[in-house]
Amino acid sequence: MIIVFVGTAGSGKTTLTGEFGKFLDENEKRVAYVNLDTGVRVLPYTPTVDVREHITVEELMKKGYGPNGAIVESYDFLIDYLDEYIEKILKLEKEYEYVLIDTPGQMETFLFHDFGVKLMENLPNPLVVYLFDPTILRKAHDYCFVRFFALLIDLRLGATTIPALNKIDLIRDLEKTKRYLEDVEYLSARLELDSSMQGLLAYKLCKFLPEVSPSVRVLYLSAKTRSGFDELETVAYEHYCTCGDLT
Amino acid sequence: MIIVFVGTAGSGKTTLTGEFGKFLDENEKRVAYVNLDTGVRVLPYTPTVDVREHITVEELMKKGYGPNGAIVESYDFLIDYLDEYIEKILKLEKEYEYVLIDTPGQMETFLFHDFGVKLMENLPNPLVVYLFDPTILRKAHDYCFVRFFALLIDLRLGATTIPALNKIDLIRDLEKTKRYLEDVEYLSARLELDSSMQGLLAYKLCKFLPEVSPSVRVLYLSAKTRSGFDELETVAYEHYCTCGDLT
Repeated sequence: MIIVFVGTAGSGKTTLTGEFGKFLDENEKRVAYVNLDTGVRVLPYTPTVDVREHITVEELMKKGYGPNGAIVESYDFLIDYLDEYIEKILKLEKEYEYVLIDTPGQMETFLFHDFGVKLMENLPNPLVVYLFDPTILRKAHDYCFVRFFALLIDLRLGATTIPALNKIDLIRDLEKTKRYLEDVEYLSARLELDSSMQGLLAYKLCKFLPEVSPSVRVLYLSAKTRSGFDELETVAYEHYCTCGDLT
Repeated sequence: MIIVFVGTAGSGKTTLTGEFGKFLDENEKRVAYVNLDTGVRVLPYTPTVDVREHITVEELMKKGYGPNGAIVESYDFLIDYLDEYIEKILKLEKEYEYVLIDTPGQMETFLFHDFGVKLMENLPNPLVVYLFDPTILRKAHDYCFVRFFALLIDLRLGATTIPALNKIDLIRDLEKTKRYLEDVEYLSARLELDSSMQGLLAYKLCKFLPEVSPSVRVLYLSAKTRSGFDELETVAYEHYCTCGDLT
């Protein structure tokens, strides 16, 4: 089965890919790693497939590109090798129990570039894990934001996407965070107190969540403590067996 | 009034900032430019405020960071100067008719980093223009995606956000594109034909759009032909006068 870790730069995709893979490996699972990040320098795992064999951000910068231009250009370049990557990953999927895919450092490169979108279209029933960082959760409407953001990733990549709060070892009151993320009634009541235009927007969106995304699970992960690793394995297994219905 | 251009790397923020500024200037408006991109090399305008005075991605890379790490680190560094930037921009807002803000090359840096979110919280009634590229519109559900993405930017940045299709000089059938973006009934009918899980999700989201975002305008822009510049000026003016109600 294929698990794809998606998230903004710094959300912990690479570290989690390595640590979750190690965890699976210790549980006698056969694991293969795919690195799609042209900008990463050091990986904590050994990738079987690695886009840096074709191109890196840093070599493009040496040719005169700025960092943003080099990131985009690297995936423009990789588009010509898309079929090759699809074929390689499909082969891994047959040979290994788990294929863990670590995506570009900048999430938007994966979501908004044809390389990411077309790759995903051609993989058999991949599970996307959308990693977000506790630091982005400051206000009530931020919780609404991440829930909808997961839905938009699902829509954009055409793949079941499960939101996962990462780095939970950094959180003091995890129960409160969980309530905000999972209890829509509770969150709505808090959003109702915010009379700004954005408060109203969040309230409307939040009220609509149960209809559009009935009882989606949220994962709580930490690469440091391996919290939530069992549950991630279970979710992936269930996803594989039920073909995408995680409700 | 403050106009903030937001969009993924390559969506044309910088070029548009420069060209729209030139347009305003030719129409005898007083325009100031703010560059928030630590990764840009060359700008087509002269910024009055420029984050590169404090830090650049490339100098961090010389110190050993990879490109993704350097981008994140540059804004971690800038957080210490946040008050200074807010003050500078507020001063510009008093002295100029238009303050055009060009945001980080990677959109997620602005949306997910405290530097961007807190800066926006402290600006008086800024108008966000969310630029997206025609290349991301391939399927019916991509149109639903961009409409909701604009809502999420609005929510995250706490500022009225108007979706703007950029580079329309590249589009063959603009009328068809407009219909997909603006006519929810038309789009829903097309989404109904897609029986995949993502088709169903897009259909539900799309049906809900009029309730959460009644008659939001979409702009159609081109820095090459200056298409839509008059309308952008009008929208900005109306936003300024009505304090955020663009319906």
